Amino acid sequence: MAKIQVAVLGATGMIGQRFVQLLEDHPWFEIGGLYASERSEGKRLREVMRVKDIHLKEDTLERRIEQLDAKAVAARCRVAFSGLPTEIAKDAESDLASSGVAVFSNAASHRMRDDVPLLIPEVNPEHLDLIKGQTTFGDGGFIVTNANCSTTGLAVPMKALDVAYGLRFVCVSTYQAVSGAGYPGVPSLDIIGNVVPFIRGEEEKMEVEMHKMLGRMTPQGVVPATFDMVASCARVPVIDGHTESVVFQMANQPSVSEIIGTLRSFEPAPQSLHLPTAPSQAIIVRMEDDRPQPLCDVYAGEPARARGMAVTVGRVRQSGKYSKIWLISHNTLRGGAGGSVLNAELAKANGYL
Amino acid sequence: MAKIQVAVLGATGMIGQRFVQLLEDHPWFEIGGLYASERSEGKRLREVMRVKDIHLKEDTLERRIEQLDAKAVAARCRVAFSGLPTEIAKDAESDLASSGVAVFSNAASHRMRDDVPLLIPEVNPEHLDLIKGQTTFGDGGFIVTNANCSTTGLAVPMKALDVAYGLRFVCVSTYQAVSGAGYPGVPSLDIIGNVVPFIRGEEEKMEVEMHKMLGRMTPQGVVPATFDMVASCARVPVIDGHTESVVFQMANQPSVSEIIGTLRSFEPAPQSLHLPTAPSQAIIVRMEDDRPQPLCDVYAGEPARARGMAVTVGRVRQSGKYSKIWLISHNTLRGGAGGSVLNAELAKANGYL
Amino acid sequence: MAKIQVAVLGATGMIGQRFVQLLEDHPWFEIGGLYASERSEGKRLREVMRVKDIHLKEDTLERRIEQLDAKAVAARCRVAFSGLPTEIAKDAESDLASSGVAVFSNAASHRMRDDVPLLIPEVNPEHLDLIKGQTTFGDGGFIVTNANCSTTGLAVPMKALDVAYGLRFVCVSTYQAVSGAGYPGVPSLDIIGNVVPFIRGEEEKMEVEMHKMLGRMTPQGVVPATFDMVASCARVPVIDGHTESVVFQMANQPSVSEIIGTLRSFEPAPQSLHLPTAPSQAIIVRMEDDRPQPLCDVYAGEPARARGMAVTVGRVRQSGKYSKIWLISHNTLRGGAGGSVLNAELAKANGYL
Amino acid sequence: MAKIQVAVLGATGMIGQRFVQLLEDHPWFEIGGLYASERSEGKRLREVMRVKDIHLKEDTLERRIEQLDAKAVAARCRVAFSGLPTEIAKDAESDLASSGVAVFSNAASHRMRDDVPLLIPEVNPEHLDLIKGQTTFGDGGFIVTNANCSTTGLAVPMKALDVAYGLRFVCVSTYQAVSGAGYPGVPSLDIIGNVVPFIRGEEEKMEVEMHKMLGRMTPQGVVPATFDMVASCARVPVIDGHTESVVFQMANQPSVSEIIGTLRSFEPAPQSLHLPTAPSQAIIVRMEDDRPQPLCDVYAGEPARARGMAVTVGRVRQSGKYSKIWLISHNTLRGGAGGSVLNAELAKANGYL
Repeated sequence: MAKIQVAVLGATGMIGQRFVQLLEDHPWFEIGGLYASERSEGKRLREVMRVKDIHLKEDTLERRIEQLDAKAVAARCRVAFSGLPTEIAKDAESDLASSGVAVFSNAASHRMRDDVPLLIPEVNPEHLDLIKGQTTFGDGGFIVTNANCSTTGLAVPMKALDVAYGLRFVCVSTYQAVSGAGYPGVPSLDIIGNVVPFIRGEEEKMEVEMHKMLGRMTPQGVVPATFDMVASCARVPVIDGHTESVVFQMANQPSVSEIIGTLRSFEPAPQSLHLPTAPSQAIIVRMEDDRPQPLCDVYAGEPARARGMAVTVGRVRQSGKYSKIWLISHNTLRGGAGGSVLNAELAKANGYL
Repeated sequence: MAKIQVAVLGATGMIGQRFVQLLEDHPWFEIGGLYASERSEGKRLREVMRVKDIHLKEDTLERRIEQLDAKAVAARCRVAFSGLPTEIAKDAESDLASSGVAVFSNAASHRMRDDVPLLIPEVNPEHLDLIKGQTTFGDGGFIVTNANCSTTGLAVPMKALDVAYGLRFVCVSTYQAVSGAGYPGVPSLDIIGNVVPFIRGEEEKMEVEMHKMLGRMTPQGVVPATFDMVASCARVPVIDGHTESVVFQMANQPSVSEIIGTLRSFEPAPQSLHLPTAPSQAIIVRMEDDRPQPLCDVYAGEPARARGMAVTVGRVRQSGKYSKIWLISHNTLRGGAGGSVLNAELAKANGYL
Repeated sequence: MAKIQVAVLGATGMIGQRFVQLLEDHPWFEIGGLYASERSEGKRLREVMRVKDIHLKEDTLERRIEQLDAKAVAARCRVAFSGLPTEIAKDAESDLASSGVAVFSNAASHRMRDDVPLLIPEVNPEHLDLIKGQTTFGDGGFIVTNANCSTTGLAVPMKALDVAYGLRFVCVSTYQAVSGAGYPGVPSLDIIGNVVPFIRGEEEKMEVEMHKMLGRMTPQGVVPATFDMVASCARVPVIDGHTESVVFQMANQPSVSEIIGTLRSFEPAPQSLHLPTAPSQAIIVRMEDDRPQPLCDVYAGEPARARGMAVTVGRVRQSGKYSKIWLISHNTLRGGAGGSVLNAELAKANGYL
Repeated sequence: MAKIQVAVLGATGMIGQRFVQLLEDHPWFEIGGLYASERSEGKRLREVMRVKDIHLKEDTLERRIEQLDAKAVAARCRVAFSGLPTEIAKDAESDLASSGVAVFSNAASHRMRDDVPLLIPEVNPEHLDLIKGQTTFGDGGFIVTNANCSTTGLAVPMKALDVAYGLRFVCVSTYQAVSGAGYPGVPSLDIIGNVVPFIRGEEEKMEVEMHKMLGRMTPQGVVPATFDMVASCARVPVIDGHTESVVFQMANQPSVSEIIGTLRSFEPAPQSLHLPTAPSQAIIVRMEDDRPQPLCDVYAGEPARARGMAVTVGRVRQSGKYSKIWLISHNTLRGGAGGSVLNAELAKANGYL
C-alpha cells in the first residue's frame, strides 16, 4: 500500500522538527515536503536543526525547506502537519483545508472553534466527528488540532478518572520546560537558576481546553464539562518535559489504590486500535517516592516509535477530602507533534483519510 | 546597653551561617560562640563556610568552632540560635533550655509540642506566651521555633487574608530551592535540568504548621485552624528562594484589588514594634506580569538589615470561585535564620529576655 | 562642584543598565538622559529593565527613554557612555564625538582604530593620550573604548606579570557567562546543562586586544606586544562572571609565591589616583583550593561603589615550564560598563573632561 | 559458545551501573553477579539505581546486590569489571587477581604501576602485553585499567595526531560533567549557575596518564612520552559529557585540513578488529561553527551498542604557531565503563581470556 504523502509546516521550529523525527520512518505516512517561511527557503534541514537530541538520517537532513504555499502543498500532499506559529497558522491552515488538505495542527488558532475537534485520541476520540461539520472547506479538507502541551498531560489521567469517579475540581500547577516556548524562546538570562511564574495565555488555555475536551459530544456539538478547573503555570529550567502538580476532587472520591488501579487499567482508543504511535500503556504509574522526574520519565513509552508518548503519573496520595498526583509528559512529542501524528492515525483508522 | 550574648548552634551549616550573617552586626545581640559537632571543633569559620554569597568580616571568619556543650553555652550565652539538624536538635535544645538558655530554633523537633510557640511574628505573635507553660526547663530557659521554610512564605499573606476574609481552602504547590536541603544536600545529578517532586515530610509539615500557626490562642493553648489545607512540594534548580503557587478560597471572597489592598496595608507586630530585622513592608505586592521570580525578589526587604525578610506576592488573579497568587520568600533567611532572629527580637520586646 | 552631565546610550540593554546602576549616585557624573532606539522611545526605564539583580531608585526607574540623536545629546551632556550594539555604535559614536561629546564606549566598533585608546586604567593608562590624535572630531569630542569583557579580566593580571617577568606565551580558555551575549542573547535551549564552545569573534578579539593593550605607547602610536597569545572561548550556564583558565610562560619564569606576591602588590593608576569606581585592590588572590568561582567572587571589590570591579585570581600553580592560574571578573561591570566609567574617571583625573 | 561470566563491582555507583547497561546484552559476556559494599547487600538493583537515563530490563532490575568477596567472585566469574571507589579498589582488585580473576578497572589505584596496562584500545593496544609481567597474581588473574575520564577523550585524537605529526605540546582546559564525581558527588549548591575550577588530583592524573599511554612499549616496559603536557580542570553544570579545549603544537605542524583528514581516517585496533563495543568511527569530526556540545554529541557512536563511545572533535583551527580543537566524550561510558568493556574485548581478541 502506498504511503500517504504529508507536508510538515514550520519545519524550522521545535514542533516541526519533532514532526520530521516521527514521520521519517512512519508506516503509513511519508514526508512529501518541508515548509517554512520565505526566510528559510532553500536551506537544507541540516542548517536549521534546533532540537539537540534528534538524530535524523543523512537523506532527511539534506532535504530542502520550501516556502509554504497552499496550492503547492495540496498538489503533492493529502495531509499537512502544522507546527506553524499561531499568528500565521490561522489563515495558512484555513487556506490548506480549503484546498482539500487534511490539516493536523499544533497551533492554538482553531482549537476553540465549535466545528474543530480539539483532539487527544486517549481522551475524546468521538470528537473527531466534528469535522463532518466543516462544510466550508474544499473536498477532503478539514482541520483537527491537538491540545496545548500542558493540557495534554493533564487530560489523559483526568479522563480516566472522570469516567470512573466523576470529576468535580482540578487544581494544577505546572513546571514547564523551555522547549515549550519554541526557539529561541526563553532567554537563558531569565531562567538559569530561576522560576518564571508566567506563560502568556497558558492558564486560560488549560482551563478552557480541559472543559472542551472532557465535554460531551452531542448532535449539536460538544457540550463543555463544568467541573471547577484552576491552572497556575510556570517555566522552570528544564529542557523537555512538563511536570504538573495536580490536586483534585471526585464525586465518588476514590482511594489511592483505586486511583492507581484505574490509571493502570485505562485502555483508550489508540491502544485498542493499535495505532502506530500509541504507547502500549497510555498511562504509566510509578510507585517510587520521588517519581516522576523529567530526566527519568520524559521519554516514557514503548515501543521505540512511541517513546515520549506515555504520560507518567506518580506520588498518588490523599490529603483530607482531596487527592494529589504528580505527572510528566513530553511537551513537544506527547503534547505537540506526537499528539497530531496520533490524531492523523486515528483519522486514518476512522476512514477520514 | 550591653548586648545580649548569643550562641550559634550548627555554625557549619547553611542556616547556622545565615545566623552568623544576621548577628555579626546586630544592635541587640552579640555572638558569644559558634558551636557544631565534634568533627568541626577547632576549625576556623573561614574553613567551613558553605554559603557562597555571604561576605563576613575577617574577625568573624577567624572565629573558632567549638563543640556543642549545654553547660558551656549556658555559662556564656543568654540565647542560643539553633541551626542544628533535626535528629540532634531535640535533645540538645532541651538540654540548653534546661540549663536556662532561651533557644530560638530552626529545627522541626519541637515545633508541634503544645507548649512551644511555632512563631512567625507577622502571623501569630500572641503564641509567644505559650512559653509560660514551659515549666520543666531551667530558670529563663525556653524553646521557641520558627516555621518550616516553605510554610513561612505562605503563612504571612494567608494570615493577612484570613483576618480580612476568612480562609476556607488553600492549595499550594512549591518550587523549592536546593539550599533548603542544607549542605551537601541535593546532589547535582538529581537536579540540573530536572524537577524532583518529593521532599520528605514537607507536605505534612506545611499542612499541620499552617493549622497551628493560624490557630487561635486560648488559655488552654492553641486551637488549630480548620480550613482545608493541601500542599504539594517539589525541588527545582534554584539556589535560594522558595516560589509558591497558591490557590485559595475565602468565606467572603475578595476581588483582586481587595486582595492587593489587604496585603499592602498589612502591618503586623514586627513592623509596628520596629524590630531591627523586620522589613519596612512585611509583604511586597508586584504588579508586573511575570513577578515574583527568585532571581529578582529573593532579597526583597528594606532596610539593609532586613534584606531577604519580606515576602513578595504577585500575579493576583481570579479563576471562577478561586483566587490565585504566586509568592516568593528567602528560605534560609525569612524561612530560616531570619525568622528565628525576628522571634528573638519579639521575645526581647515582650520582656522575655 | 557641579556634576558632569552624562548620557547613557543603549539604556534598554544589559550594559546600558549597568551604566545606570553605576551612575545613579556617582560623585562626579550625573545622568542627563537615557537613550535607545526609536522602538523604546517614551518608555519608562522600569518597563525595560532586564538585569535581575539591579535595584534602582524609584526616581531613576521613572525616567523616560529618549530616541538617540547626536545633537540633542550634545546639547545636554558632556559625556556619553555607550552600551550600543556594535552595528549601530560605529556611526552613532562618531556623530557624537563630532558634536563635541566625549564618548566612552563598550562597543567593539572603534577599538582597533590607531587613534582610539583601547583602555583599561589598570593596564595601559598612558594610551589615553591617543585621543590627542583624534583631530577630526568636534571640539572636546573624542572616543575611548573599554576592552572586550573576557579580555579585561585577563589583561589586568597579565599586565602585572608582564612588567615584572616579561610575558612570552599566554593560552586562555574561557567559561563565559550568558549575560555577555546581551538580552535576549543565548536561548535557554542552547545552554541549560550544556557548554557551547563558540562565541563569534571572541577568540580573535582576545588575541588582538591583548596585543594592543599590552603594547608600548610611542610618539607614533601604540606598538603592539608580540608574545604568543592563544584564546579558546566557550559559553557556560552562568548568569554573570567570566571564568578563565590561563596557562603562561614568562621570560624570567617566577615561582608560585613570586606570582602571588606580584599580583597582590600590584597598584596601578586607578588605585594610586583613588578613582571613585576603582576597588581598593585591583587584583584579589585567593588561596583556597577551589576558588575563584563565579557565585563567590563575581562581585569582588570594595568599597561598595567598586563591587564587581576587582579581578579575582586563584589556584596559582606550576606545571613544568608553565604557570597556571584561574581568574574571574564580572563581565558587564569590570568587563563592560564599569570599565568605561573607570575610563571616564581617568580622563577626568587627567584633565580631558 | 558459552558467554564469559563477569562480575560488576560497585554496582550501586555511576560507573557500576554503566557497566550493567553495557553488559546486559553483551555478545561475549554475561553478568554473573553484582557486588557492592555490605551496606547494599541484598537490595535489588532497582532500589539503588542512580543514573537517570539508563533503562534496564525488569529481570536485571530485580537482581540482588551481593557483598563483595574475592573467593565468591572467583568461584563464579572469569572477569570482574570494577567501578569501586579508589580507596577500596586497591586491595579488593589485588585480591581478585590473586584469586585468578581478570580485573578490568575504572579505579585509579593501579593505573601507574609499571606492570599494569593503562589501556585505551584506540591508543595503546600493545601495552596490554604488560600483563605478562604480572607474575604475583593467581593463574589467569591480572589487572588492566582504563584511563581517567578526561584523559580518555584527549588521548584518542592526540594519539592519531602524534603518530602523524609528532606531538610537542598539549595544553588542555576541561569542562567536566558532574557525573564524573559519582553519586551523590557534587552538591547542587556548588554548581548550579557556577563553575568550580578544581577537581582534586585531576590535573596531575591527566598529565602523567597522557605520558604513560602515549609512551613507547619496550621489552623493559613503557617508556613515557616527553611532550609538554599542561592540564587545567573545572567542573561545570552538565550531567554527562566532558568538554575539552585543547591547544597543541606538533613537530611538523599540520594545517587545519590535514588535522581533519588525519582524525577522520584514524582506524585503530578496536575498529579493525570489529570489537563489539567499538564505534564504527573512533573519532567524529564536526564542521559546524558551534560543535561539539554535550547535549548534541555526548552519545555519539554507532551502532547502538557503541552509543557514547566515539570521541567528537570540532572547531579545528590555527592560532599562530598553535592548533586548537574542542572535543567531547562521554565520561562514564567512553571514559569509564565503556573503556573497560572495550579493554576486556581487546583482551579476549588477543587470547588473554
